[in-house]
Amino acid sequence: MTDMDPNLITTFTDITSARVRVSPYIHTTPILTSTFFNHKVGAEIYFKCENLQKAGAFKVRGASNAVFSLTEEEAANGVVTHSSGNHGQALAYAAQQRGIPCYVVMPSNAPEAKKAAVKGYGAVVTECEPTNSAREFAAKVKKQETGANFVPPFNDPRVISGQGTCALEIFEQVENLDYLVAPIGGGGLISGLAIAAAELSPNTKVVAAEPLNANDAAMSFESGRLTSIDAPQTIADGLKVNVKELTFYHIQKHVDQILTATEEQIIEAMYLTWQRMKIVIEPACAVPMATILANPEIFRGKRIAVVLTGGNVDLDALPWM
Amino acid sequence: MTDMDPNLITTFTDITSARVRVSPYIHTTPILTSTFFNHKVGAEIYFKCENLQKAGAFKVRGASNAVFSLTEEEAANGVVTHSSGNHGQALAYAAQQRGIPCYVVMPSNAPEAKKAAVKGYGAVVTECEPTNSAREFAAKVKKQETGANFVPPFNDPRVISGQGTCALEIFEQVENLDYLVAPIGGGGLISGLAIAAAELSPNTKVVAAEPLNANDAAMSFESGRLTSIDAPQTIADGLKVNVKELTFYHIQKHVDQILTATEEQIIEAMYLTWQRMKIVIEPACAVPMATILANPEIFRGKRIAVVLTGGNVDLDALPWM
Repeated sequence: MTDMDPNLITTFTDITSARVRVSPYIHTTPILTSTFFNHKVGAEIYFKCENLQKAGAFKVRGASNAVFSLTEEEAANGVVTHSSGNHGQALAYAAQQRGIPCYVVMPSNAPEAKKAAVKGYGAVVTECEPTNSAREFAAKVKKQETGANFVPPFNDPRVISGQGTCALEIFEQVENLDYLVAPIGGGGLISGLAIAAAELSPNTKVVAAEPLNANDAAMSFESGRLTSIDAPQTIADGLKVNVKELTFYHIQKHVDQILTATEEQIIEAMYLTWQRMKIVIEPACAVPMATILANPEIFRGKRIAVVLTGGNVDLDALPWM
Repeated sequence: MTDMDPNLITTFTDITSARVRVSPYIHTTPILTSTFFNHKVGAEIYFKCENLQKAGAFKVRGASNAVFSLTEEEAANGVVTHSSGNHGQALAYAAQQRGIPCYVVMPSNAPEAKKAAVKGYGAVVTECEPTNSAREFAAKVKKQETGANFVPPFNDPRVISGQGTCALEIFEQVENLDYLVAPIGGGGLISGLAIAAAELSPNTKVVAAEPLNANDAAMSFESGRLTSIDAPQTIADGLKVNVKELTFYHIQKHVDQILTATEEQIIEAMYLTWQRMKIVIEPACAVPMATILANPEIFRGKRIAVVLTGGNVDLDALPWM
């Protein structure tokens, strides 16, 4: 594990502070259960419904914590980010709540519904080529033009602390969890969850779920060295980004396992969740359930929390149609 | 208003008794809110999520009350009904809980997902022509063949009492409601809700929402005489049935208003609910929101409970695709 600047490391106290800061702007989301999935896996599964969160995803936790951490002077020129959708929407929502400008760089192939939603919260959208390097570059240019504060989608202590607030709710809502499973894209959510779990429920294993087609985190975790994939091809468009230094530090320290799922498994899990649980989840959000269904031997007989991360899907272009 | 056999009239006490009987077999469903719809209407809307109910719809309330009201002797030959889907699924679920046979007559054009679900709960499905008269006839034949107890989808005191339990939860979950809006097909749900509202919250106006293309209830309500439409054409397949004597009696006594919505308004409300609330609702379930969006002058500034009746939709054949 590499050395890390202690000022950048998120602590449990940062997460409890973030909760106080963001609670006026977010929902405490409900937990749902499904007899169908419980029988199918032979486990007790508790679904934390961040798809019912403000702006349709958990991302509003980290974005709100970043926006409301800024001083008046820092906030004056607004905030800027790059995002395939949910973080941009979340930052736009948080900026609107604080009444400051927001600039969002989005890949040209992001779903139309997500672009429209970002604009709906009053943000300015700039499109770029659909690669990780192109969007980072475009966001830097925008920051230089406007003087806005850059709020990265995940590799940022303010964002990681904010996402961790989700775990505080989970451990209050469900006791004696054996597993906590969440998707991994850049790793901001799983880092925040794992830091909180280590403090609140050290016996709960934290599992990150990743599309096999975008398995940079699994490769990095196994090799111990940060590995990147530029422009991976997966239906789980929220998980195309790569883990970075800061999130990788927390993942190496606190995450127990990374499991992967194929595109077919992801679509199947998404369809079953819509059909049986009557909730709208986006493809990225189906990855944990896909990995659980693909690895029943790990999860049988266990108490499992699954974070349903978001529901921002283009209803006119569903993967099974 | 016609005279009615007092033994057939559902009372508030019947509803509270039904609650005791059915509570082991059903969920107390959550209430969700939507900033989007609140802003759009200028009202406070509380969505009672019966789409998250066992077997995917409120129908399990009435079906369970009927099944668990039977004596051992009555129950031995099982239960039989006709249904375009949700009542059949609910009765099959309740019969499975009690461990008795279940026979369901379904119109041949009922969604595949609904037929499969009824069979999934262990019931025997018989298909018939898609008219109200054909399904009633086929169910009678099945009853004669098997000796099963006939549990009608709505025109039955046991069923009406069971559906009314939904209102007991609503008035515990939300205070000071100006309106309670629910779809009307045969009228079992709205009857149960209206009987409970008259007792628990007499100032709450009860509004039934109906597809314009299947507006038998609206016509009957206006003329004061039961009017039928055979084989109406609407996307809201759960609402194609006609109000009958018993439900019409309760509707005339306790329902304040019947509003209608066009097919386009129903599809638009369904799409917006999926997109903004991240929940799966079936077309019939979108009719109340469609009527509210079509009549904002009635609802502006009010506190409104909307019953989201069910989420059993064929995901492979969505109306906007």
